[in-house]
Amino acid sequence: MTVTDGAMMAPNAQFAAGDAGQESFADWSVRCCSRVERELERVLPTSEGSLARLHEGMRYAVLGGGKRVRPLLAYAAGELAVADGTALDAVAAAVELIHAYSLVHDDLPCMDDDVLRRGRPTVHVAYDEATALLVGDALHALAFEVLAGLGQPRPGVPAAAAPPAATMIAELARAAGSFGMAGGQAIDLAAVGAELDRDAIEEMHRRKTGAMLAVSIRLGWLAGNSVHVSPQDDQAALERFGAAIGLAFQVVDDILDVEGDSALLGKTVGKDEANSKPTYVSVLGIEAARQFAMRLHGEALEALEPFGAAALRLRQVADLIVLRRH
Amino acid sequence: MTVTDGAMMAPNAQFAAGDAGQESFADWSVRCCSRVERELERVLPTSEGSLARLHEGMRYAVLGGGKRVRPLLAYAAGELAVADGTALDAVAAAVELIHAYSLVHDDLPCMDDDVLRRGRPTVHVAYDEATALLVGDALHALAFEVLAGLGQPRPGVPAAAAPPAATMIAELARAAGSFGMAGGQAIDLAAVGAELDRDAIEEMHRRKTGAMLAVSIRLGWLAGNSVHVSPQDDQAALERFGAAIGLAFQVVDDILDVEGDSALLGKTVGKDEANSKPTYVSVLGIEAARQFAMRLHGEALEALEPFGAAALRLRQVADLIVLRRH
Repeated sequence: MTVTDGAMMAPNAQFAAGDAGQESFADWSVRCCSRVERELERVLPTSEGSLARLHEGMRYAVLGGGKRVRPLLAYAAGELAVADGTALDAVAAAVELIHAYSLVHDDLPCMDDDVLRRGRPTVHVAYDEATALLVGDALHALAFEVLAGLGQPRPGVPAAAAPPAATMIAELARAAGSFGMAGGQAIDLAAVGAELDRDAIEEMHRRKTGAMLAVSIRLGWLAGNSVHVSPQDDQAALERFGAAIGLAFQVVDDILDVEGDSALLGKTVGKDEANSKPTYVSVLGIEAARQFAMRLHGEALEALEPFGAAALRLRQVADLIVLRRH
Repeated sequence: MTVTDGAMMAPNAQFAAGDAGQESFADWSVRCCSRVERELERVLPTSEGSLARLHEGMRYAVLGGGKRVRPLLAYAAGELAVADGTALDAVAAAVELIHAYSLVHDDLPCMDDDVLRRGRPTVHVAYDEATALLVGDALHALAFEVLAGLGQPRPGVPAAAAPPAATMIAELARAAGSFGMAGGQAIDLAAVGAELDRDAIEEMHRRKTGAMLAVSIRLGWLAGNSVHVSPQDDQAALERFGAAIGLAFQVVDDILDVEGDSALLGKTVGKDEANSKPTYVSVLGIEAARQFAMRLHGEALEALEPFGAAALRLRQVADLIVLRRH
C-alpha cells in the first residue's frame, strides 16, 4: 500500500471539503478558482501614494481573469497528497504570479509585441513599457515571497510536518529560470523565421510551458510533505504525468492558434504563422498535431493509474487541458 | 553579554580565517570578492546548445566586475554573526544576482536607456533587448534558487543550526519587490522632470537602493542563525546601521554623478541632470548633500557601537561606501 492509498481514506478536511464522488468537476474547479482568486487578492498589494500605479498594474495583470490552469493542477496534486488547504492556496498563488509576470514581459514590444491579453489591453498598453517591466519584476519577487511564507513557523503545525518550503522554492525558481520558462522563451525568440525540427520544438515547449505546468503539480504534491513518505515510484509517476500534460498543453495551444476563436481565446489568433514561429502544427500538420495531443493525453492518464480514484481531479484537469476550446 | 561578544571570541574558522586585527581591510575585501566571484562562477550556467546565448548573457551581466558592495556587507555582517562561510557565499551571490538583474533591466531603452555599464556596453547593446529582458528574469530566479539551497539538508549541519532559509528568501523577495527596489524604480520613473521634496527623495532612495543594501546586511546576519539567540537590541542596532548606510550610499551616488569621473565610474556622469531627475544634490545643493552623507555615516557608525570590535568589517565597509571615489 502506498501513501496515496492512505490519502484516499483520509480526505483533507481543510481543502477537499466535499466528497470527491459527489462534487462535480465544474463545482470543484470553480471552488479552486475562487480560492486562488481570494489568495491573490490577499497577497497583491493595494497601497496608495507613490506606489499606487505600480500596485494597480500588478493587480491589473493578475486579477484580470485567465484559466488558472496552473493553480488547478496544484490543487489537484495537493488533493492527492492530502495537503493542507492553506499551503495549497499559497502554492496556487505563487505559480499563477510567475505565470502572470511571464505574460506581462512576453507581451512587451521587444518580445511578442502583443496588445491584447485575456480580452483586454496588455499591461504596457494600459500603462507604459517601463511600468510593465517593473510590474513583471515585482510579481516575480512576490511569487517567492508568498511561497517562502510556507516556511515560517505556524501555530499548530510542527516543523517536521510543514511543507518543505526551501525545496519548493528551489524547484519553482528552476522551472521559471534559464533552464525552464526563461530558457524556453529565449529559444522561442531565436526560432522566429527558423526551421526547427520536431526535437527542437519539443525542447522549446518543455522549457517554455511544460516546466511551469509540471512544477505546479510537483509543488501541490510537495505541499502535502509527501516527499518524505511516498514511494519513489509515485513521484516518478507524477513526474511522467507532468511531462506529458505539460507538452500536451502546448500542442493544443498551437492547434488553437490556427483553429481557435479570437473572441473566445481573448488574444489574437494566427500570431504564430504571422510571426513565422515554428509550431507543432507547422512541423507536423494539423492532423498529426491533433493525434500527438491525444497520445500525450493517453500517456498522462496512464501515468496516474497507480493512484486509483485519488487522482480523479488530476485526470479531470488533464481532460480540461486537452479538450479545451480556448 | 550579548551573543556578539561571544562572536568576538569564537572566530568563524570557515570564513574569518585570519585574525581580524592582522588582515588589512584591503586584503579582507579582496578575499571576499574572490569568494563571491568563485560562487557566482559556480552557480551561473554554462550550458551550450540552444541556451548558450542566454547563459552567455547572464555571465556577461554578472561577471563583468562591479564593486560587490552588497556581498561585502553580507560577509561583514556574517562575520559579526559567526556565520558559516558556505552559507555566506550563497547569500553574497544571491544579493549580487538580484543587483545584476536590476541593472540589466534598468539599462533597457524603456527605462534609463543606458549604453555603458562597468565600462562596457550594456547587455541590451551587447546582445539585444529581448535577450536582456530574459537575462534579467533568469538572474532574478537564480538568486532565489541559490538562497533556497541553504534550506536543503547538509551533512554535518543539524536542521536547527541551518540558516532560516525561508525567512531569508521572504526578506530578499520583499527588498527586491514592489515595496523595495522595484517600487523605488517606479517612483524614480515618475520623478523624471518632477519636483520632489526631500521626504519624497528619501522614500525613493530607501526603496530603490537602501532596501537591497539593508537586506544584504540582514541576510549575512541571518546566515549565522543569530535571530534565535541574539537580543532584540542587537537586531534593532543592525537595522539602524543598514538604514543609515543604505541611504548614505545613494547620497554619495548622487554626489558622484555630479563630481565623479566617467572613466573611473565606468558609467556616464551627469545623467541625472540630463534626465531631469531630482537628486539629493538638486534638492539640497552639493555642500548640504555632502554634509548629509557625513551625518548618515556617523549615524551608521554609532549604531555599531554595542558590537565593539566584532563590527570592525561593517565599520570598514561603511567607510568604503561613504568615502569612495567611484
